[in-house]
Parts: sequence; structure tokens; C-alpha cells
Amino acid sequence: MSTRRALNVTREQDFPAWYQAVVREADLAEISPVRGCMIIKPWGYGIWELIQAELDRGIKALGNDNCYFPLFIPLSFFAKEAEHVEGFAKEMAVVTHHRLKTEGGRLVPDPEASLTEPLIVRPTSETMIGDAFQRWIRSYRDLPLLINQWGNVVRWEMRTRLFLRTAEFLWQEGHSAHVDEQDARAATMGGIELYRSFAESTLAMPVVVGEKPEHERFPGAVNTYSIEAMMQDGKALQSGTSHYLGTNFASAQNIRYQNESGNLTLCHTTSWGLSTRVIGGVIMTHGDDDGLRLPPAIAPRQIVLVPMLRGDAKDGAILEYCEVIAGRLNQASAFRLPLRAYVDKKQNPSAEKRWTWVRRGVPLILEIGQRDVAAGNVTFMRRDALRSGDKVASQAEPRDAFIARAPDLLAAIQSALYDEAKQRLTANIRGGLERFEQVADYFGAAAEDVESHSGFKGWLQAPWCKPTGAALDQMKERLQKLKLTIRCAPFDQPRKLGKCIFTGKKAVEEIIVARAY
Amino acid sequence: MSTRRALNVTREQDFPAWYQAVVREADLAEISPVRGCMIIKPWGYGIWELIQAELDRGIKALGNDNCYFPLFIPLSFFAKEAEHVEGFAKEMAVVTHHRLKTEGGRLVPDPEASLTEPLIVRPTSETMIGDAFQRWIRSYRDLPLLINQWGNVVRWEMRTRLFLRTAEFLWQEGHSAHVDEQDARAATMGGIELYRSFAESTLAMPVVVGEKPEHERFPGAVNTYSIEAMMQDGKALQSGTSHYLGTNFASAQNIRYQNESGNLTLCHTTSWGLSTRVIGGVIMTHGDDDGLRLPPAIAPRQIVLVPMLRGDAKDGAILEYCEVIAGRLNQASAFRLPLRAYVDKKQNPSAEKRWTWVRRGVPLILEIGQRDVAAGNVTFMRRDALRSGDKVASQAEPRDAFIARAPDLLAAIQSALYDEAKQRLTANIRGGLERFEQVADYFGAAAEDVESHSGFKGWLQAPWCKPTGAALDQMKERLQKLKLTIRCAPFDQPRKLGKCIFTGKKAVEEIIVARAY
Repeated sequence: MSTRRALNVTREQDFPAWYQAVVREADLAEISPVRGCMIIKPWGYGIWELIQAELDRGIKALGNDNCYFPLFIPLSFFAKEAEHVEGFAKEMAVVTHHRLKTEGGRLVPDPEASLTEPLIVRPTSETMIGDAFQRWIRSYRDLPLLINQWGNVVRWEMRTRLFLRTAEFLWQEGHSAHVDEQDARAATMGGIELYRSFAESTLAMPVVVGEKPEHERFPGAVNTYSIEAMMQDGKALQSGTSHYLGTNFASAQNIRYQNESGNLTLCHTTSWGLSTRVIGGVIMTHGDDDGLRLPPAIAPRQIVLVPMLRGDAKDGAILEYCEVIAGRLNQASAFRLPLRAYVDKKQNPSAEKRWTWVRRGVPLILEIGQRDVAAGNVTFMRRDALRSGDKVASQAEPRDAFIARAPDLLAAIQSALYDEAKQRLTANIRGGLERFEQVADYFGAAAEDVESHSGFKGWLQAPWCKPTGAALDQMKERLQKLKLTIRCAPFDQPRKLGKCIFTGKKAVEEIIVARAY
Repeated sequence: MSTRRALNVTREQDFPAWYQAVVREADLAEISPVRGCMIIKPWGYGIWELIQAELDRGIKALGNDNCYFPLFIPLSFFAKEAEHVEGFAKEMAVVTHHRLKTEGGRLVPDPEASLTEPLIVRPTSETMIGDAFQRWIRSYRDLPLLINQWGNVVRWEMRTRLFLRTAEFLWQEGHSAHVDEQDARAATMGGIELYRSFAESTLAMPVVVGEKPEHERFPGAVNTYSIEAMMQDGKALQSGTSHYLGTNFASAQNIRYQNESGNLTLCHTTSWGLSTRVIGGVIMTHGDDDGLRLPPAIAPRQIVLVPMLRGDAKDGAILEYCEVIAGRLNQASAFRLPLRAYVDKKQNPSAEKRWTWVRRGVPLILEIGQRDVAAGNVTFMRRDALRSGDKVASQAEPRDAFIARAPDLLAAIQSALYDEAKQRLTANIRGGLERFEQVADYFGAAAEDVESHSGFKGWLQAPWCKPTGAALDQMKERLQKLKLTIRCAPFDQPRKLGKCIFTGKKAVEEIIVARAY
């Protein structure tokens, strides 16, 4: 028998509906009247601001300086790198006019204000930034050139899902140019390692780091690396990518430097990006049937105090008691920033307020009543361990003791969320496969359960030989029938490799096979 | 006779060329290959990040929550508010296609991917945010609804100038909805007061705050308020605006709430914005013939140490000495943030390094040589008082004393820059005018000197009667001939008013008349 939870749908019943319910009930975001674009609401944007602040520190520590490049990219720029344009041309917003006019009482694009060359709303900025690199780089003394941009990008998408896949999204894109392959490869690895440590430490989201197979690379890249996280439905979420671009963009855009001997030499470039998509990852990694559970490091409010007001004379004392506690908590620090505590003074019933904060995933929720004030206590709930059996588990503690250990308690919640997810990840990567039939068996010969999104399936890790030509096509077809993709070849590889599950030939590495967002 | 300065053009010789030289030599920004769009380089973006951080604190203190709304606005939204569309329709980027295709070897917008309804790249978000307000607001309990957005906007411009007028720019836009006029007006005033205090405290840029005349209002506003700063060429720079929108947008977009009696009532809304334009204001307020001078509060590096390296064995000791000083400085705080000190370890000649930081406007520049190390001293220059006569003025001081007073020194530089600009502002607003002929006399009957940008002219403050109809048209024409505009009616008004300089009738207030960017 199922227990009543704060959401009207459980993960087990319908995972996609549960995801939508969390986004809605935690008041994170909503669809907008513009096809495929989302509105990020204060609670969701507050999470993004904390993600930005922490990741920005890491980016600056890598030596990358923030800049800002134009939103629009001339069509001709985009056409320079052949694979790149092939990969993106199908899904870009195209600006063709710069003025409207009234015609028959209706506003229409003014034909006289048609652009000679259409402009593309950036889907990514390699071409625009490469053009700047080409102007900025003269000599080896200008290298490495390390920059980063925070901004919005647009990729026209037919099927959108809030945070996970939207036409417009927010992200950062790191870009760098280097004297040689070795230096550029080190920067590529620096990018993906930043994402790994950020995902694990700040988002409490364990990931597998590895290299994408050739057919899943970024258009124009020599190598693409990704971090892949396991969602609670067993699907993979690519949560950040880093690309070694070789000299592909440098050749197309003439990014050269004079080396120490005075010769003009092509730069090696990199790029790496992480987006608002990770908020979807946080939801599907940590959420439960009562709503969102936020890692304290990215919770806009880490501790919410709910005064249990009765509309009588004692309310003043309760409010004051709460304010004093919040004031003291806000003087402490947590995760290298001032702790964020908040008193919810709304006149709504306290149970309603409690559930609002439960659904929003606040790590520690305090309910303060007259009894607490009298005893000098606080009564609190840990959002990561909300229930004991079916009941909500709260505990009382002397106020001063609670205030003193609040930062540790937040750190413990951060760890607990990570550990829970880490355990799920490691327990659900299945190895020991020898033939593709075992893959088919595991995921079910038919892919109907993928459509209905029911049934948990983890990941498989299996050896392969990097097939090419017809064998590659056959492999892709077999995987596609099962709605599977190769996520990456983990950096962490076994010592001994079996035979390729697709061809039976000698394998060269192991790969993760999974369903994915 | 003119002295050699770090720039190859002085303010007096050619102010616009000087402005461009500062932007270039301080490495702030550059024009991009996309017409009218700029690339903001690390030093310029670093200033913007500090502006954002400080202004964001003020915005949050007003109670406005950050959100994110779509970049694109459906054409039909824009058409709802008649004055609004009239004001913007002439300068908007229009997206008409969502895919490209290859045709005859060339990439072109795919005719099959033409949008049913064109999308406008937001020039401002009143219509998009109003649409959300209409969905979010149900009852008086939801009010006031206070939000803010940081993002990019696009207004197609024919004549662009870096930071001051670009097709794409970065800004914040605050938006709010209220139960009544009184509450909305208070929020409108809260916005403009935030800008005033931010401009004066953080940018060290004194301003006149006032109301725009009707013909200069934001399209769709009932009242528009602005802060106006005086540039060193005497022109005014509108640096932030706040609008009381009355029920204009609420009517057009059906933003209503149920009041306490249960009746559906129109909301009163506001909006206010401040953009990257203020960086242009900082340049033209504080820059001198040696380049930029940055108020320490927004200097990405507040103190730069230039070790005078000779390529000999003693270099190590100099570098170490510098690192120790920088480390200790970075533990101090200035303007409520950790102090930002930096050691420039580049191998370039130290004189070259010095001038790089002079041009970039670093408030305190230290040159550390062997003699300083031996004596335990630092030798430093204040950028706000770089020269004594023609020579660069540096002073030596014991290291520990300098470190101890560095935060105070930065505060003193911030004040000195403000005082200098404040004195220029107050000394150059001329009053006591009785007839328009005096305005013409002051600015010169012809406007040639405006074209050549030569000759400093301050502002005039004069009484007017708010003429309407033909008198208004005549006034506008007379002002336009002299390239003048009415900037605002300052909040700070005299007790006694003379007669309107345009009509000779009884005046209702005094206004600022000036040339402007």
C-alpha cells in the first residue's frame, strides 16, 4: 500500500510525470509561451546562481577569464568548419530582418530591412570566439589564451523538457588556444576534471568520466569527454562535456601564432560547457516522492524556520525567537559562504508552509512552537531523511547546540545525498558481458518499457573494439532498436579486457551502454 | 605645450577619439564582426562582474528575486501595448526561420522551416514578464510581485559606439506588480534611488536624479525617472531609468488580482534598468589623458605589484617580496569584499608593465625593486593623482605601514574620484536663465562645435511651463537645432520659479538642458 506523499505521483508510477511534478511543485520553472523556451522562476534561478558562483570560482582557478561575445553569429562564420555546420545547421534560430512595419494593420518584418547576410542566434560560440582568437593571437607569448563566457544559447528542439532540453538554455562555455597538442589536451582534461569535481562536491551527483565514442563527438572535435550521471530511473544524463578540437577550428579560422623560431604555427584549441541542464540532473538524482531534495551547497535557503503562529499574543515571542536563531545561523558559514537561513513569516497555516519547503527541498526545516520557545529548543526535520517509515521524522534539540552544529549538519546532509547516489551508481553498473544478446536480454528485447518509462534499468559496462564501417552501422542500429546509446569509455578501465560484445573481436576498452536523456 | 601622455590623443584634442583610445588601450572591449555588437574583453567584463555583484546586492535588498525569461518574444505580445510597439518596432532583430539548408552549395534559411509567427529578440521584457505576471497573480496576497532579470537585449542601432550604444547589450531589468498606484510609485522611486546610490557610491559618478519630460518617456510609461551624469566633455549620459507604468501594461495584458473584497482589480506595474552603458560613463567621468582611472570598488585588480626584474639572481627575492605583500593585501577587505591585489610576473620590461596598468586604471600601482626589498619599503603610485606637474609621482613607504593602510587608501581614492567629478558637475550647471536666447548664446547659435565635439559646455538648468501642442513642437525644434535635449526635471527643485524660457509663461518646474549621448 502506498503512503501519502507530498506529490500526487511517485517516481515508480510515472517517472516523467514525477519529474514534471517536482519542477512545478518546487516552483523551479515553467514552460513559456515561446515554443521550447522556459521561464526559470526564483527558486530555480537561485539554484543556478549558486551553481554559477561555485563553478565560476573553479573556472577562474583554471586561469580562464570571463568575456562576452555577441549573441549573433554571421552565417558565413558558421559555414567555415564543415562538420560543425553539419552538426548544428538543423536546429538554429535565424535572424533575417532588423525592423518591423505595419501592413494592413498587422506588424510584419519590413522587407526593406532584410539583412544582407542572415544572423544565427549562437548555438555555441566556437566560431565567434575563434575569430577573436585569430585577431588576438600573434605570438607564443599570447598563449595559452584562456577565456570563458556565461550566457544564453539557442538550439531549436522539437521535443523539449524543462531544464533537460530547451530551445534556449543558460550555460558557460570555456574556450582556449594553445601552442601544441599536449598543452591543449591538458586544458581539455582540466575542464572535464573541473566538471567531475564540481558535480560530485557541489551537486552531490556522482558521475562516470570518460570519452565519447567517435559518432557521439561534438561536431568538429577530435575528442569529446563527458561526465555522465545516473538518474533514478536508470537513465544517463550527460552533464558536462569538454572537447579537444585539435587544429580543426584553427585551420578553418586561421588561428596561428609565431613560435619561438618565428614560424607561423596553427594553435590547438579546446572548448567545454556546462548548462542549466544539471538542474534537471539534481532533481532526478536527489528528488523523492515528497519533491525536491537539494544538496545544501546549492540550496537558496539552507535552513527555513517555520514559526507555528496561532494569531494570539504569544506569536510575537515565537517570531522573535525565530529571528534570533536565524540571525545567529546567518553569521555562521557553510560551504565557504555565509549560511542561508530564513524565517517564513507568512500568515499561512504552518503545515502548509512546512510542505512548501519540503517540496522545494530545503535541507533543514525547523518548526518552532510555543513549547520550543519555553524549553529553549528547536524541532527540526532533515529533508534527506524526512520520514521514518511513513511518518515525518522530526527531532528536538537545545537551540544553542543546534546552532553550533548547523554547518556540520548541512555538510552531513550534503555527504548523505552524495553517498546515497554513489551507492546507486556503483550498484547499477553491470559488467561481465560477453555477447550483445546479454545486452538485449537485460534491457528487454523490445523497447516498449522505454516509451512508458517504467522499470528501472541501470547501465552496462562492456568491452568493445571500436568497430568501423559496416560493423559500426550495424552496432548503432542494434543499439537504437533498444533505445540505447554508448555514453562513454570511462577513464577508469579494467586491467583485462574481454572480447567486443558487438563483433567478438579483441576489445580495446570498455564502454558504458545505457538509455539516456 | 603638451606633455607626453600614455594615450596618443588627449580629451581636449578630440574627445570621441580619446574615448576610443581608452577603450582600446585599457583593453576593455572591441567591435565585433557582427554589426553593432561588441566583444567585452576580460578587463571590461571584470568591471561588469563587480558592477553586477554590487548592484545585485541592492536589488535583492529591495526584495526583488532574480528570474530568467525567454530571449524571444512572440510578435503578437509586442503588439499589445500600442505606444510600446511604436517605440520599439523600428529597431528589433526578427527571427523568421529555425533551420538552415544547403542550396547550390550555400547555406540559406530553409523555407520549410519558416516560423508561423516571427519571434522578436527581446529589446526589453515588459511584455514577456507581464504575460507571466498575468498567470502568476491571483490575489492581493501575491502582491507585490518583485522580480529582476540579468541578461542580454538587442535594439538595432544604426550608429553604435562601444558600451554607449550597441545593438546587443547586457543589463538588468527590474519588474514589479502592485496593488495600487501608491505602492507602485514607491517601487519606482526605490529603483531610481538604488541607481543613484549605486552610481555615486560604487561608480564614484555623481548624478542628477529627476523625471524625464513626457516626450522622452519610455514607450508605454506614465512616468520615467532617470539618473543623468555629466561626462568630461560636458555632455549628459542617461545612466539608469525607472518607470511607473500605471495600468498601461496591466490593461494590455490583463494583469489583475482579486482584492480583499473579492473584486478583480488591475495591477500597477513598474520597470527599471541599468546596463553596460555605465562602463562608458565610468570612462568619460574618470578617465584622463593617461587612460582609464577606475574607482577601486569596481577595479578587477585594485593593487598591482610590478616587480622590477633584471634577469639576475636577485629576481627571486623581489618576486618573493611581492608575493608576500600581495598575499597579505589579499587577506584584507575593501568595499566589503576581499581586497584584490596582483603580482604582474610577466617578463616584459617593468616600465611597459607599469604603463599597461596605468592605462587600465588600476588605483594603486607598486613598483618593487632591489632597493625596496633591502629597505623593507614599497614604492607606489596613486592612479587618481598620477602626476605632479609633468612627472609621474611615486612615493615610498615602509611595507607594513602600506599594507595596514591599503584599504583606507583605496577608500580615499574612491572618494577623491567622486569629489573631483562632483565638483565638475556642480560647477557646470548654470542657472539664472530667463529667455531661450541665453540658451542659444551659451551653446552657440550654430551646432558645429557639437559635430566637432570640441569645446566644453556644461548643462543649463532653467524654468519651463511644460508646453503642449504647437508650443511643444516649437520648443523641440529649437532645442534640436542646437542638438540639445531636456534631460530631466531634477527632484531637487528651487523654491521660487521664474518664467518659462520657452514661452515666457509661469513655470511649473526647472529642467536640465544639455547635449547628451
